[in-house]
Amino acid sequence: MNMEHSSKDLVNEVEHVEMLDASFDAYGGVIINVKNDMDEYVFTALLQTSISQWKQQGKKGVWLKLSIELVNLVKPAVKEGFWYHHAEPTYVMLVYWIPETNHTLPPNASHRVGVASFVLNDKGEKSGVFKGSGVWKLPTGTVEEVCKNIYSISWVGSGRVKSSFDPLNTPACISLLLLLLYLQGEDISVAAIREVKEEAGIDTEFVEVLAFRQSHKSFFSKSDLMFVCMLKPTSFDIEKQDSEIEAAQWMPVEEYANQAFIKEHKSFDYIAKICISKKDNKYVGFSPLLTTSATSAKKSYLYSNYQLE
Amino acid sequence: MNMEHSSKDLVNEVEHVEMLDASFDAYGGVIINVKNDMDEYVFTALLQTSISQWKQQGKKGVWLKLSIELVNLVKPAVKEGFWYHHAEPTYVMLVYWIPETNHTLPPNASHRVGVASFVLNDKGEKSGVFKGSGVWKLPTGTVEEVCKNIYSISWVGSGRVKSSFDPLNTPACISLLLLLLYLQGEDISVAAIREVKEEAGIDTEFVEVLAFRQSHKSFFSKSDLMFVCMLKPTSFDIEKQDSEIEAAQWMPVEEYANQAFIKEHKSFDYIAKICISKKDNKYVGFSPLLTTSATSAKKSYLYSNYQLE
Repeated sequence: MNMEHSSKDLVNEVEHVEMLDASFDAYGGVIINVKNDMDEYVFTALLQTSISQWKQQGKKGVWLKLSIELVNLVKPAVKEGFWYHHAEPTYVMLVYWIPETNHTLPPNASHRVGVASFVLNDKGEKSGVFKGSGVWKLPTGTVEEVCKNIYSISWVGSGRVKSSFDPLNTPACISLLLLLLYLQGEDISVAAIREVKEEAGIDTEFVEVLAFRQSHKSFFSKSDLMFVCMLKPTSFDIEKQDSEIEAAQWMPVEEYANQAFIKEHKSFDYIAKICISKKDNKYVGFSPLLTTSATSAKKSYLYSNYQLE
Repeated sequence: MNMEHSSKDLVNEVEHVEMLDASFDAYGGVIINVKNDMDEYVFTALLQTSISQWKQQGKKGVWLKLSIELVNLVKPAVKEGFWYHHAEPTYVMLVYWIPETNHTLPPNASHRVGVASFVLNDKGEKSGVFKGSGVWKLPTGTVEEVCKNIYSISWVGSGRVKSSFDPLNTPACISLLLLLLYLQGEDISVAAIREVKEEAGIDTEFVEVLAFRQSHKSFFSKSDLMFVCMLKPTSFDIEKQDSEIEAAQWMPVEEYANQAFIKEHKSFDYIAKICISKKDNKYVGFSPLLTTSATSAKKSYLYSNYQLE
């Protein structure tokens, strides 16, 4: 049909035909806005009318976010050709592609992101002590450890290890805190500081990302990214907050590193070596730089070991 | 009820009551296995009977994966107290928590992970040339750029920049490739190499992760992690594969870095500086080390700049 005819139809439609409430995005997409529950058959009729209109308008992707209270509309939407894009506890997002071409809709989130933090300090004298039991280990991001944030706080009294230090370049004492946390829309550096405070009652400053590990199929088809961070404490009295935490105590980094469990597992052993290397000022990780997005005013952190002149 | 009574009931149930097909996981969880479509009312009855049984058995989380063909069972499941955990195009995963306590089910994936690759080479003479248009930019992970992998390949002829090089420590020429790719269950290093080959026809070896950027709310409530990688080419003739790619050409890294668009945006400008710093052998990023998981035989990569003695 030619443009004149099509635009004339459009006017009639707008005058006489009921359509679903929707807004348009910058990529030729349509975002359907279903606020209240409605009859499945009424919904199907409105959906069919609306899609034919959007097709005339050259729209492409159609997004349908249905809160869990509107679960009765999921089936009719799928019957009309919608498929699942992603879901969160309170809603499911369905999508539909109007053109004949392959869809170019963005992918779903693919990774869980965990943070494990070491705390390194040079004022260990005030540190609290907790009795520990079992193995002090870096959480490995299994379901079990998501449910139970096992961690350890370890400390080196200055007297005990000073001999192995370069007194000019290394702190007199070391504190070590391990903790797994899964991020939800939070900065790695901000989350690490917040969680150390919540779980151990210790105030810290973010130092570096020492390393990160990527593993797959750790959760259905999803992957895990775990960032190993180094923090510097500004307070030292441990207050164990989380009843799910097995125990927390100060211990020498070397004592942590020398545990059979750590030595037996290559990645733990390697991370322990990095921590000791950092303690000896022989390692440089990535530091965060606050930047703004190129396409919006959004803040983001760029992690690197680049030093601005 | 006491154990004797409960186990007696259990035997009766096993003998006489029809239940949903399910398997148990190591965390006290139940995974329902619905293969074929069934009547909604039959499903509801079986679900109720099964959950009461699993409750007697002390089970906790119940996982219900419904393929999109079984969409008619989503509503009855939600009516029984299930909620959405996550969804992919072909299925929705619902969950239910049997105990009175707060659930400890693992979180959904929270991040999309993108890779942007620079290719650095010292044999630029053979490089192909493509006419480019517009600004050569690092994709910023918006929906637009997920749909359109804009990239550029840039090259420095040895003659043009040798004077600014330390001939002992820097390559004679530089190649630069920018490309955004969203990972789905693939290693960062493996995906970067594969995509450079697919998009530009260039064979490469992985060198380092130079930096990474974390940004939020880039996609509904999800976050983005973009890894900026450095690759070394082992072949040099560019074959532009992807019709969605605007253009590709060799250009000096300095020419890329000096574009107004790059200089105007802090994160692009910073990444360009890192690339030039790497070119001059004044920067060390993170290299991958293949390790095995501590809790399984799964392979994973640990990225750091630690050098094993």
